[in-house]
Amino acid sequence: MTKTAAIIGGGVIGGGWAARFLLMGWDVRVFDPDPEAERKISEVLANARASLPGLADVALPAEGRLSYHDTMSDAVAGASWIQESVPERLELKRKVYQTLQEHCAEDAILGSSTSGFKPSELQNCASRPGQIVVTHPFNPVYLLPLIELVTTEANPAHVVDQAKVVLLGIGCHPLHLRREIDAHIADRFLEAVWREALWLIKDGIASTEEIDDAIRYGFGLRWAQMGLFETYRIAGGEAGMRHFVEQFGPCLSWPWTKLMDVPELTDELIDMIADQSDAQSGAHSIRQLERIRDTNLVSILRGLKAQDWGAGKLLNAQDRRIGGLPATLDEVADLAAPILVVDRAVPLDWTDYNGHMNEARYLQAFGDATDRFMMLAGCDADYIASGGSYFTAETHIRHIDEVRAGARIRVVSQCLLGEGKKLHLFHRMYEGDRLLATGEHMLIHVSLETRKASIPDDRVAVPLARIAAAHAGLSRPEGAGAAVGVR
Amino acid sequence: MTKTAAIIGGGVIGGGWAARFLLMGWDVRVFDPDPEAERKISEVLANARASLPGLADVALPAEGRLSYHDTMSDAVAGASWIQESVPERLELKRKVYQTLQEHCAEDAILGSSTSGFKPSELQNCASRPGQIVVTHPFNPVYLLPLIELVTTEANPAHVVDQAKVVLLGIGCHPLHLRREIDAHIADRFLEAVWREALWLIKDGIASTEEIDDAIRYGFGLRWAQMGLFETYRIAGGEAGMRHFVEQFGPCLSWPWTKLMDVPELTDELIDMIADQSDAQSGAHSIRQLERIRDTNLVSILRGLKAQDWGAGKLLNAQDRRIGGLPATLDEVADLAAPILVVDRAVPLDWTDYNGHMNEARYLQAFGDATDRFMMLAGCDADYIASGGSYFTAETHIRHIDEVRAGARIRVVSQCLLGEGKKLHLFHRMYEGDRLLATGEHMLIHVSLETRKASIPDDRVAVPLARIAAAHAGLSRPEGAGAAVGVR
Repeated sequence: MTKTAAIIGGGVIGGGWAARFLLMGWDVRVFDPDPEAERKISEVLANARASLPGLADVALPAEGRLSYHDTMSDAVAGASWIQESVPERLELKRKVYQTLQEHCAEDAILGSSTSGFKPSELQNCASRPGQIVVTHPFNPVYLLPLIELVTTEANPAHVVDQAKVVLLGIGCHPLHLRREIDAHIADRFLEAVWREALWLIKDGIASTEEIDDAIRYGFGLRWAQMGLFETYRIAGGEAGMRHFVEQFGPCLSWPWTKLMDVPELTDELIDMIADQSDAQSGAHSIRQLERIRDTNLVSILRGLKAQDWGAGKLLNAQDRRIGGLPATLDEVADLAAPILVVDRAVPLDWTDYNGHMNEARYLQAFGDATDRFMMLAGCDADYIASGGSYFTAETHIRHIDEVRAGARIRVVSQCLLGEGKKLHLFHRMYEGDRLLATGEHMLIHVSLETRKASIPDDRVAVPLARIAAAHAGLSRPEGAGAAVGVR
Repeated sequence: MTKTAAIIGGGVIGGGWAARFLLMGWDVRVFDPDPEAERKISEVLANARASLPGLADVALPAEGRLSYHDTMSDAVAGASWIQESVPERLELKRKVYQTLQEHCAEDAILGSSTSGFKPSELQNCASRPGQIVVTHPFNPVYLLPLIELVTTEANPAHVVDQAKVVLLGIGCHPLHLRREIDAHIADRFLEAVWREALWLIKDGIASTEEIDDAIRYGFGLRWAQMGLFETYRIAGGEAGMRHFVEQFGPCLSWPWTKLMDVPELTDELIDMIADQSDAQSGAHSIRQLERIRDTNLVSILRGLKAQDWGAGKLLNAQDRRIGGLPATLDEVADLAAPILVVDRAVPLDWTDYNGHMNEARYLQAFGDATDRFMMLAGCDADYIASGGSYFTAETHIRHIDEVRAGARIRVVSQCLLGEGKKLHLFHRMYEGDRLLATGEHMLIHVSLETRKASIPDDRVAVPLARIAAAHAGLSRPEGAGAAVGVR
């Protein structure tokens, strides 16, 4: 099998396929009559190059070659995979398959990105129906792993197996449907929600933004990690899935949505759901599932927090409302003592396989400590936006004791030197009175334009000198100036 | 206003409310006739204590006092907020409100957790309808910020304002509905999806697990950060929301779901959606939204990866398939040279406000380097599970040059000492030939049971001695043994 893919139709979806194949080492041959196709695909590819390689913790294979072709017959030359992403018009798709099959290899796989058509509809005018399957992706194709693989009895087993191997090889999760159905699985849900959302807007219940908030601040966070049934299994509590279905089943016949045709909740259907849920999630107790869910949610929410987006933006606003640390130098109670710059609990996602806070998270906390110190010294967001900042040149961490998730940690910061380009800080991290770690850091003031060392202006130099003078009377910390392995 | 909340009904939802109020500094008074209530709430509280405080980057207020009460009249004493989470039976809820209003303060707010009832239904037999509102939360209540706040004209403006202040104060996002409606907003979507899911199972199209996978490997990841309309705005591409609605509108009348009542897509409705979407997201171009979305997705996916769950588990499996680094000592090409232990791209979420890789991520990469070195030296997952591991005691990082998201970085590791309890490593990080940083690390072998230093057994001691002997001939790295600020 060649690692050559032909991309027929290069819009948002086709471009996403092109990017995924290319970044996973395949050569990609594009056909798209749109004169703008090359520009559009370049833009998708730029996004994919920025995001996909770093998602892996290993280096991806060397990128394949990308080429554009004026005809379908040229594009499919040598291709073992052909991905069709032309507009959703059945007659158009059938015509495209006719042309493709006149020119492509007999053992190539033709995957259709169709959102709604069944594979039998694509196969039933084709000269070789067996090589046509539905491989329905989700935007952005280069990041989301789900591919709905839909096949029919016309597809030989080896074609289905080969399709799975290729999709897995480019980092996708082929979800093979048990049988074909209009709109496959996911789009049935999207369609149901979309229709309900249109009603909510039309009826003046909520705006597009309110609807998005209702999703991304609530069940959207649950669905990103567990989906529908595993979430409800937990909601059923200790009694599990059967209890949930029995309890919430009746609501189905209440007038909650615009659309009311409801499957009868027979004992048989309840059994089927409960049994499937056991097979899916029964290896974990409800308590375990709760802890897994919560750790996932904390990871997702903290990820969004770092981007200041969605529910993470809400959390940052909440942090500001809670406050607690000095926001300006004048709020520091005793400037002649090390300054409290971090006061927080250890998040669930900061621990590692050794059962304690991971070493990198110590530096994250010390980095936050440095950021807070810089803010107090006038190097705040405004100053940084004006073109000056400090870069860390050197760090020395001594791990003195362990700490676990949930523990409240504090970092106090002592300024060893704060003049000219240099800022020399010594952080101590405590849980209560227990010293956990020290961090010694040398920072250099830089111009963010030249990326070279520079002298801070008075907005920073003056408050920094004030702190340095106040800390001059403190004794030099034990451990400062030490090298690794030297006592 | 007192910071005292009464929790009426202490199941999964009531317990979640109790935990959120308590951890945000409120005193909480619980009434629940279930003899198991105290145990159940303790379990919810244990989950909340493990997850909520670390979600904040500041210390939460001191925890309030929790008490259990035998009667509703006792529970509501002194409470300024009363949260009702009793079973979804209207007559029961009405009776509860009657009792609550006989005993609670006239200016207290009575919030109902009802998923489906409208506030007017709760208010219309009440002695003081003005103090009853719907505040519908999402499980787990202590982590998910969304609260659907539903009010009627019977609620004075100051009650609505006060409800928002309290909810915001305990870290929630009050989504105030424009008018009441059965099942509010989110549950209308959940109901539509739930019904469709039941059909899919009943019709044998997919199992509960396949349905969950269809959600959490695809659109669930999108919804966690942008919801429905902002996602579709991007899908519309450069032409935006209006194009999307016009293009996908017709699908609504196709037979994709079981339920077909469809709002007519009049010009007026299309305008309404496009205008609302502009108001919501118009500040960002489609290209900007794409980059925001991709960075969010990378953050979420990498968070799930660290938990080896959902789409993150798929990504870890993909990393193993791609491989690339030596998995055993025998696969190391030249044992007499520093060993390649990290080879990867810098993820989008590893950069900070200075536009380069954040200092903590250097240590994360060096920590991964150490993990890989340990694995090669026999300290792998099996060894760690058997009770031995290495803890980092000291770290010295020198930042030599900057690196940005997307860059491919490599770390090679030199063993300076590997005998007895000690492991002394020197990592060098490169982008191409450009030296970015060095990391010098002293690790101590420990028993994971006693958490004290111990001698590794031969599964580690033997391969480690082999590496140390092979590296004995390497020259001592420039910068090894240096202290911060000393050249």
